[in-house]
Amino acid sequence: MPDPFPSWPDVAPLLIAVAAGRAPADRVIRGGKLINVQTREILDGWQVAIAKGRFAYVGPDASHCIGAGTDVIEAEGRYLIPGLCDAHMHIESGMLTPAEFARAVIPHGTTTMFVDPHEIANVLGLDGVRLMHDEALMQAVSIFVQMPSCAPSAPGLETTGREITAEDVSEAMSWPGIVGLGEMMNFPGVIAGDPKMLAEIAATQEARKTVGGHYASPDLGPPFHAYAAGGPADDHEGTTEADAIARMRQGMRAMLRLGSAWYDVERQITAVTEKGLDPRNMVLCTDDCFAKTLVEDGHMNRVVRHAIACGCDPLVALQMATINTATHFGLERELGSIAPGRRADLILTSDLTALPIEEVFARGERVAKDGDCLADCPHLDWPDHARQTVKLGKVLTADDFDIPAPDGANRVRAKVIGVVENQAPTKALTADLAVEGGKVVPEGEICRIALVERHRATGGVVNGFVSGFEYQGKMAIASTVAHDSHHMIIVGTDTAMMAQAANRLGEVGGGVSVWKDGTEAALVELPVAGLMSDSPAEDVAKKVDRMIAAMTDCGCTLNNAFMQHSLLALVVIPELRISDLGLVDVTRFELTDLLETP
Amino acid sequence: MPDPFPSWPDVAPLLIAVAAGRAPADRVIRGGKLINVQTREILDGWQVAIAKGRFAYVGPDASHCIGAGTDVIEAEGRYLIPGLCDAHMHIESGMLTPAEFARAVIPHGTTTMFVDPHEIANVLGLDGVRLMHDEALMQAVSIFVQMPSCAPSAPGLETTGREITAEDVSEAMSWPGIVGLGEMMNFPGVIAGDPKMLAEIAATQEARKTVGGHYASPDLGPPFHAYAAGGPADDHEGTTEADAIARMRQGMRAMLRLGSAWYDVERQITAVTEKGLDPRNMVLCTDDCFAKTLVEDGHMNRVVRHAIACGCDPLVALQMATINTATHFGLERELGSIAPGRRADLILTSDLTALPIEEVFARGERVAKDGDCLADCPHLDWPDHARQTVKLGKVLTADDFDIPAPDGANRVRAKVIGVVENQAPTKALTADLAVEGGKVVPEGEICRIALVERHRATGGVVNGFVSGFEYQGKMAIASTVAHDSHHMIIVGTDTAMMAQAANRLGEVGGGVSVWKDGTEAALVELPVAGLMSDSPAEDVAKKVDRMIAAMTDCGCTLNNAFMQHSLLALVVIPELRISDLGLVDVTRFELTDLLETP
Repeated sequence: MPDPFPSWPDVAPLLIAVAAGRAPADRVIRGGKLINVQTREILDGWQVAIAKGRFAYVGPDASHCIGAGTDVIEAEGRYLIPGLCDAHMHIESGMLTPAEFARAVIPHGTTTMFVDPHEIANVLGLDGVRLMHDEALMQAVSIFVQMPSCAPSAPGLETTGREITAEDVSEAMSWPGIVGLGEMMNFPGVIAGDPKMLAEIAATQEARKTVGGHYASPDLGPPFHAYAAGGPADDHEGTTEADAIARMRQGMRAMLRLGSAWYDVERQITAVTEKGLDPRNMVLCTDDCFAKTLVEDGHMNRVVRHAIACGCDPLVALQMATINTATHFGLERELGSIAPGRRADLILTSDLTALPIEEVFARGERVAKDGDCLADCPHLDWPDHARQTVKLGKVLTADDFDIPAPDGANRVRAKVIGVVENQAPTKALTADLAVEGGKVVPEGEICRIALVERHRATGGVVNGFVSGFEYQGKMAIASTVAHDSHHMIIVGTDTAMMAQAANRLGEVGGGVSVWKDGTEAALVELPVAGLMSDSPAEDVAKKVDRMIAAMTDCGCTLNNAFMQHSLLALVVIPELRISDLGLVDVTRFELTDLLETP
Repeated sequence: MPDPFPSWPDVAPLLIAVAAGRAPADRVIRGGKLINVQTREILDGWQVAIAKGRFAYVGPDASHCIGAGTDVIEAEGRYLIPGLCDAHMHIESGMLTPAEFARAVIPHGTTTMFVDPHEIANVLGLDGVRLMHDEALMQAVSIFVQMPSCAPSAPGLETTGREITAEDVSEAMSWPGIVGLGEMMNFPGVIAGDPKMLAEIAATQEARKTVGGHYASPDLGPPFHAYAAGGPADDHEGTTEADAIARMRQGMRAMLRLGSAWYDVERQITAVTEKGLDPRNMVLCTDDCFAKTLVEDGHMNRVVRHAIACGCDPLVALQMATINTATHFGLERELGSIAPGRRADLILTSDLTALPIEEVFARGERVAKDGDCLADCPHLDWPDHARQTVKLGKVLTADDFDIPAPDGANRVRAKVIGVVENQAPTKALTADLAVEGGKVVPEGEICRIALVERHRATGGVVNGFVSGFEYQGKMAIASTVAHDSHHMIIVGTDTAMMAQAANRLGEVGGGVSVWKDGTEAALVELPVAGLMSDSPAEDVAKKVDRMIAAMTDCGCTLNNAFMQHSLLALVVIPELRISDLGLVDVTRFELTDLLETP
């Protein structure tokens, strides 16, 4: 573990001396316009003096803080804005380790992230969370960890690599980088008074930390109120203005997200821009960003720009990505504003609307300039057990993917998972399928889907059918990104290639492998927990691009086809999914048979 | 110690069940208009359901929370506003114990107080703070304690009964009712980097609690910035709009006070009402209220009304006395709003501007109605050592107050403390006085003043002269309320009566005794630490009225004459004061001789 960043009281004697003019600052930035997010003002000409990574002086004239060794930076009329905070996100969604995620977002001005390593928790349990936490603490920017609350997401319907217990939550609350509990997705459990969920919330509240919420239902009646009474302090699952208003009225913070595939800012921010509600309880976040978005579009700067484009006053939008977030997590005396004692995180930008991120400082160090990351982003020495998580227990062969028909049948009626473009829920379809040699054979655009157990080397394979991808010819695609328990999902038309794709991921430690006509068409290696790469975002984004191109070559033209693929085992979203335990009817939350008895 | 009030997680299962409609609420209030301080809205028809002292449901229709045993209250169109919070105050200023202070303010709608027992700390040290803390925790309303930071206020210039050390501060941070550090009055010490002051701040910040500020200087240049860099998170010493703006820009909260003798709201609130700054960092408080104010005018309701009268939007003014305060102290998930999980503290009022306090609920119980306190306000069994704090060490006699002249002198030039009406600073005057029988004799309107040591029974008496009270005839007034070290201050024209007044306070355990023409004209008994009465506020206010009438009878027509009297030993405010160590020149912060050598 690195030395922790010195606390305000650790360095207060020096900060005082600098502000009083008795000691020189490490760095002074002058000649700019300072955005004061506490008062919501632009302070023309205000200057900052920085020492030991914290603001020592913030005021009209820092000349008394300048000594021989002080680095004086001329802002040349640009705005000084606080570094941006992402209030809720999953690093794993970028297929990047914390270090490489940081390297990708620092040039976009993100200096603080609140991350919920829910995905690795499903693979490696508390140990995985600790590894993410430890790499997070090594970075030049501030990455706080929300302890995952729900692994497994659906107890009894899937088997995760490891489980998170209420005792794990209690233990994690004492770690230095844990800021609260990750999104409490088991909202039916909270509403029903599930003792395990309430114990996790209690452990978090007793540690005076923040309980993340996740209420993914449009019902704003008594169930919603019951959830709010359980303790979650925020929610990023709202999608409408009414959702945002309802959450704020309950004393929760409405987290508005703009992720790679989430567009929930525009419809909710009208609670402030049109209805005129107090904006203090509205916070911006990304939730999930793909590497490509980080490389091409940005991160929190993209969200703030979008909020402004939706009609939000730029200063209010900046508050939603700085002080509001810091206050929410009990960190307003630590970061989120340009004020004495706070971490010296700031951005120089020449335009408050377009928000070009020209220079970024974190803890007083210049960490990015003109889009280039200047910070070291040190890697944890990820241990073998975190790099070798794809445990198949055997070499898979084509016949692992055979689906036997009932004795004597020559046609069967089978359940089919129906993927719907641009929607997370699937449809529970059925199809009459032929039987050849005692095995059920998919027809038309119906493909095979298999869930391969990969955490405990059981060799288990669950087979089923899926429609909607429009794959043609002989192909297969396998992924160890397979929410939420992250076994391996394979979709294909050819059982031999399905085995090849699976075995390939066993070799490389996980990722995504696409096969067409007997050869591998694309590979994204994700060796850390089968979820993340420790290569730079640009490399991962290129490989993902090739993967998507390969999927298209196989006939798939679905929007966000890979995301659809990776969600087919997400047994908390209706209607039909697959898990290591079998096919799951997610309207009834129970296992169901693949073949209907005549 | 009483059982602590159950925490949110303690009662979450029940709150959830009530909100979901599975269990009945203890109480439902309906038919009103709810003030939502999070969103700054009036929600017509919104209802609340309360269970175990916390809000379980807050929404448009609580009918599903009503069972056979539920007490249903009809608001009849009145407003439901959160209980009011006093962000900074000294209970001792009311000359009342915490229990009796609570009894006085509950009918005014105050349900939360943040109290700094600085006065008793000077008398009884950490032990006195603990006694205040323990009685505070016994009350039906929420009284949080700020650990006093500066006893003595002026080390080397006075001797307190006990001192507060940095170790005391560390210890107190673990007590259940301690919310932070009391006002850091030693601002020159912070600016100079005084290790003791910084250790107290560090202990508070490391406990993730709030450091109270006190920057009593108009200089908003580098010293002010250095103070802000030291860690104080708020300040109630501002008096101008510029003061308020400066504090908020530094990330501090501007506390605007309206006390019995403080009028600092009107000039500062324009930062919001005219300059349009974000009001979230502005908070209202009283600092010091006399019993008479509580009986006749109100408490925080008086401050909120005044803020509204100054042009502040009523909802914004209410935020400044509820959610802003709660957020400041890290308690926004515990109180300060009408939202699920929070302490069910609320007021029913029929007018948002006049703000009549018609009914008050604290932790779900009705604690006041139409001005009557309905709550038990249990008294601590104050131990003998807290009730017998006036230790004179001897029976005082007239000659203890003689002031010997230099040998052979028949006139001397003496320093005289000049009281200035309506101002805290005194003037350092001089006067040529006659000598009779080897003793200096005051003339005209110059009176004697004596500081009698009362903590350690040393028998020490320091004598001097004071002008400005205009006392006539033979009289004396003695008080054990004598900021900040709270020895005994006696002012008089007659040495025999000065001895009588002093001895009288020795008998009754402290308070104020006024003597005229050889008999006691008024007595205010303050047996707890010589500072507080455990009688109701009405009784204390009547006795104080009689005391002031007696002072008037003696010829004194000064505004706030008793306050002036009690501040004559406050050796941190210029120019000339008296302490147990001698006469103090507070422009130079040093002891000085009473008589000038020719």
